[in-house]
Amino acid sequence: MMYQAFLLAIPLLMVFQTSCINTSPLDSVKAIEQARAPKVSLSRLDELRNRAKFIGRSCKEVKDRYGQAEDGLYYLTTSTGVVYQTFCDMTTAGGGWTLVASVHEDNIYAKCTVGDRWTSQQGNWANRKTFGTVEAATDDDFKNPGYYDIDAEDMSVWHVPNKTPFYHWNLAAIMRYHTERRFLHLYGGNLYYLFHRYPVEYNVGKHLSDNGPSIPIVYDLGDKESTKMFYGPYSGGEIEGGFISFRAINHERAATAICSGVKPKGGNVEHYCIGGGGFFPEGNPLQCGDFTGFAWNGYGTHIGFSTSKQMLESAVLLFYR
Amino acid sequence: MMYQAFLLAIPLLMVFQTSCINTSPLDSVKAIEQARAPKVSLSRLDELRNRAKFIGRSCKEVKDRYGQAEDGLYYLTTSTGVVYQTFCDMTTAGGGWTLVASVHEDNIYAKCTVGDRWTSQQGNWANRKTFGTVEAATDDDFKNPGYYDIDAEDMSVWHVPNKTPFYHWNLAAIMRYHTERRFLHLYGGNLYYLFHRYPVEYNVGKHLSDNGPSIPIVYDLGDKESTKMFYGPYSGGEIEGGFISFRAINHERAATAICSGVKPKGGNVEHYCIGGGGFFPEGNPLQCGDFTGFAWNGYGTHIGFSTSKQMLESAVLLFYR
Amino acid sequence: MMYQAFLLAIPLLMVFQTSCINTSPLDSVKAIEQARAPKVSLSRLDELRNRAKFIGRSCKEVKDRYGQAEDGLYYLTTSTGVVYQTFCDMTTAGGGWTLVASVHEDNIYAKCTVGDRWTSQQGNWANRKTFGTVEAATDDDFKNPGYYDIDAEDMSVWHVPNKTPFYHWNLAAIMRYHTERRFLHLYGGNLYYLFHRYPVEYNVGKHLSDNGPSIPIVYDLGDKESTKMFYGPYSGGEIEGGFISFRAINHERAATAICSGVKPKGGNVEHYCIGGGGFFPEGNPLQCGDFTGFAWNGYGTHIGFSTSKQMLESAVLLFYR
Repeated sequence: MMYQAFLLAIPLLMVFQTSCINTSPLDSVKAIEQARAPKVSLSRLDELRNRAKFIGRSCKEVKDRYGQAEDGLYYLTTSTGVVYQTFCDMTTAGGGWTLVASVHEDNIYAKCTVGDRWTSQQGNWANRKTFGTVEAATDDDFKNPGYYDIDAEDMSVWHVPNKTPFYHWNLAAIMRYHTERRFLHLYGGNLYYLFHRYPVEYNVGKHLSDNGPSIPIVYDLGDKESTKMFYGPYSGGEIEGGFISFRAINHERAATAICSGVKPKGGNVEHYCIGGGGFFPEGNPLQCGDFTGFAWNGYGTHIGFSTSKQMLESAVLLFYR
Repeated sequence: MMYQAFLLAIPLLMVFQTSCINTSPLDSVKAIEQARAPKVSLSRLDELRNRAKFIGRSCKEVKDRYGQAEDGLYYLTTSTGVVYQTFCDMTTAGGGWTLVASVHEDNIYAKCTVGDRWTSQQGNWANRKTFGTVEAATDDDFKNPGYYDIDAEDMSVWHVPNKTPFYHWNLAAIMRYHTERRFLHLYGGNLYYLFHRYPVEYNVGKHLSDNGPSIPIVYDLGDKESTKMFYGPYSGGEIEGGFISFRAINHERAATAICSGVKPKGGNVEHYCIGGGGFFPEGNPLQCGDFTGFAWNGYGTHIGFSTSKQMLESAVLLFYR
Repeated sequence: MMYQAFLLAIPLLMVFQTSCINTSPLDSVKAIEQARAPKVSLSRLDELRNRAKFIGRSCKEVKDRYGQAEDGLYYLTTSTGVVYQTFCDMTTAGGGWTLVASVHEDNIYAKCTVGDRWTSQQGNWANRKTFGTVEAATDDDFKNPGYYDIDAEDMSVWHVPNKTPFYHWNLAAIMRYHTERRFLHLYGGNLYYLFHRYPVEYNVGKHLSDNGPSIPIVYDLGDKESTKMFYGPYSGGEIEGGFISFRAINHERAATAICSGVKPKGGNVEHYCIGGGGFFPEGNPLQCGDFTGFAWNGYGTHIGFSTSKQMLESAVLLFYR
C-alpha cells in the first residue's frame, strides 16, 4: 500500500505536515475549508470578470488564442451562442483541458433516486440535459453544454475526493490521467456523439463482444497497478489498468458508461465501471446508482467486489481537449 | 394517413432522400446528430456573443429595435433585470416569437415523479419557478423567466420530436400554429397571469362549464384534421381542431392545463390535454404525468384513447409574442 | 392578537383598504399579481443591464464602491470568478444585505422528498450545491454561491409569504430582523463555514448542551412577543424571542439548522427550528421536511406544537452583510 501513502502525502504536507495514519485527504480539505472565507482584492475580481472577453468554444481555444495559462474558471460559448463558465486545466500535459462533467455518488444506499443523474432511465449520456455547477462538481453530479458542444480529440479524467473546492482539485486528486491518441475524432468529437453510437441501454448486446472502445491512457498521477488497487480484489482478475473504456456490458446485459482507468476482461463490470442506463437485472435495484455496484461487499471495505473508500468517496471529473 | 407522409417527407428528404417506410423524423435527427460536433468560425462566435448588446424583454423587442431577423438564441432582460438566453423564432408570420416553455414527457410510465414538472402537486403553471435549458427543451421540461415576465398578446405552439436540437426544430416539427387575436391582453399578458385566473387545481369546477378559454388558431404546419388524427380515435368524438384551450376540467374534476390544437367538447380531457395540478382521481396515479392519459390504451398505439406515437414522443414548445 | 392585525395592515391598505377579516397578505399579493405583467421602459432595462459593470463579492461592496442605494437585483462575483445575480437590500439598517438563500416548505405533507433541499440526507448546509432562482425564492428553496463565498459579519432574516414577488417582499414580510454583533467573524464568515463547525447531522450530541450559538437580534418588523406568537402554544414554554440560533438538537438527537427569532430552552426544537440533516427518529419520516415538525398538531392550526398558518406559508429568506 506504499503508493497510497505517497499519494496522500502531497496534500497533507501542505496543510499539516502530520502523519497519514489518522487523516485522509478529505480531512485535510475540511481543515482548509473550516479556516475562513478567502480574501480577494478588487483588482483580482476585475481580472476574473475580464475573462468574459475571451471568446472560445473550449479551454484549448481560450489558451491558444489568448495565451491564458492559469488554471481556473473561464467563459465558453457554444456553437449556437450559449455562454457558460467552467474550469480549465491549463497546465497538465500542455493544458487546454475543459471540464465538461462529473460523476458523483451522493448516497450509494439510495438506489436510482433523482440524485443519480448518470444512471436514471435515460442516463443522460446521449442528450443535452445539463445539471449541477462547476463549483459543486465534487458535491453533486455535473454536466455542462461543453459535454455535447465541444469538438474534442482527447479526454482527461481526475478522481477527486468529494467536497473538495476546485482550487484544490489538482492537489487532492487520488488519480489523474489523459489520452493522447485523438480517439474522439473517430467517435464524433465528444461523449454525446460517442454514446449515440454506443447507447448506454439495457439489452444492447453481450458482455465483452459488444462493449465500446477501450483507449490507452497516460498517467499524470498513479499508474496501472495503483489503479487496480482502487477496485475490489475480486475485480482485479478481470481488469487491466492503463485504459479508459466506454459502454461496458455486464453478465445480465445491463450497460455501464465508463470504466475509469481500466479495460474490462469479464462481465462483472458494475463493480469497476460507473454510470448506466435502463435496467440492471441482478438484484434490482441494488446496482442502480451512479457508482452501480461499487459497494457490493460493504461500504468502502475493499473486500470482494467493493472498491476502496477513497474511490467510493471521490467524484470522477471528465475533461475534453 | 397521407398528411403524415407529407409532414415526414420534409426533414427526411434533406438528409437521406430515402423512403418513409422504416424511418421517423426522430431517426433522421439522430442520423444528423451522429455525424459530428459542428464547426464554427471565431467570427461567428463573436457575432453570437455580441447579441448580448441587444436589450429587450422579448424577441419581438429585439427584432423591432435591432432588426434581428435570424432564428436563434438571444439575450433577454426581465422587468427586474434578470438576464437569460432563449430561442427566438424571427420568421414565422412576421417573427418575434419568444420560446418560454416546453412540456416534455420523459417517461409516461413513471407517474408524478420529479420528471413531471408540469403535473406535480402545484404544477408550476402559476409560479416563478424555472427549470431546464433552451438547448435541452426537447430533452426535458423547460420554463424560463419570460413565462411570467413578458407582456404578450399571442401564442405560438410547436410539437417537436424529442431530442431534436433547436436548429432543426422548425423542420422536424409535426405541428405548428399560432393565435392572431391578441387574446393574452384579456388574461394579464401571459400564462402566469392567465393561470392565476384559471387555477390548474383539483375540484375548481365542472367539466365544460368551468373550463378556461378556447382560442382559434392559424396553422403554420398541419390543419384541423391532422390535429385530430394525432389524438386517439375515442377522443375524436369530443374534440374540435383549430383551437388552443386552457384549464380543461375532466369528469373527475381534475384540471389539465393546455389542450393543444383542440377545443374540448367532453370531459375525457386527460387524453388530449397536457399538464395538470393537484389530484387526478381516476385510477390514481395513472393519469399523473406531463402527458396525463395519453397512453391510456397502450403506448403510442393510436387505439382507443391513446395518442399516436409521434404525438407522445414530441415536446410541446410554447412561444409568446 | 393585535400585533398581527397591525402587521397585516400595511400591505393590505396599499391594495384594497379593506378589512382584515377575510384577507391574508397572500391574497393581497395575488390580487396585485393578477393585475398584469408590468410595463418597463427601455431606459430602465438599460440601467438594469448596466449594473453588470459593478464588481463586488457582496451587496455591501456594491453599495460601498458604487453608491448603489436602490433595492433590487445586482451582479456579484465570487472569489473564483463565478458571476451571479441576486437581491440586495440596500436600505435596512444601513443597507448592503445580500440574499443568499431561502428555506421554503413546498408541501408539509410530502416528507423528505426532493422538494426538501434543506432537509435531505446531507441537508446542503455545508456544501457548495446551489439551487432555485432569486425570482422564485418564495416559490421554492433557494441557495446561491454567496452562501459559501461571501466573507460576512452579520445576518438578516425575512419571513415572507409564499409566492410574493421580490419587489413586494419588504412590505409583505411578517417578520424581519438582523444581527449587529459581527458574530459570523467567529464562525468563518458565513453559514457554510459555521455549519462545518456545527454539522447538521444525526447523533452529533445532546439537546441544549451541544447546540450551536444563539445570537441576539434587532427587530426591523415585529418583536420578541410577536415572534413567540408565530410558533405553537406548546413551544412557547421552551423558547425565548429575540435570538437566531444554529444547529439545535432535539430529544431524539436529530439536528435542525436554524431557529429563526428564538433561542431553544428545551428539546422539542423540530417545532420551532427549520432545516435539518440525517435522520429524525421520532415518528420517522413525519419530521422530515424543510419545516420539520411545524404542522405536528394540524396544518396551520396554531394548536399544540403547530405554528400559525402565516408562519407555515412563509419562506425564510437569509441575508449576509
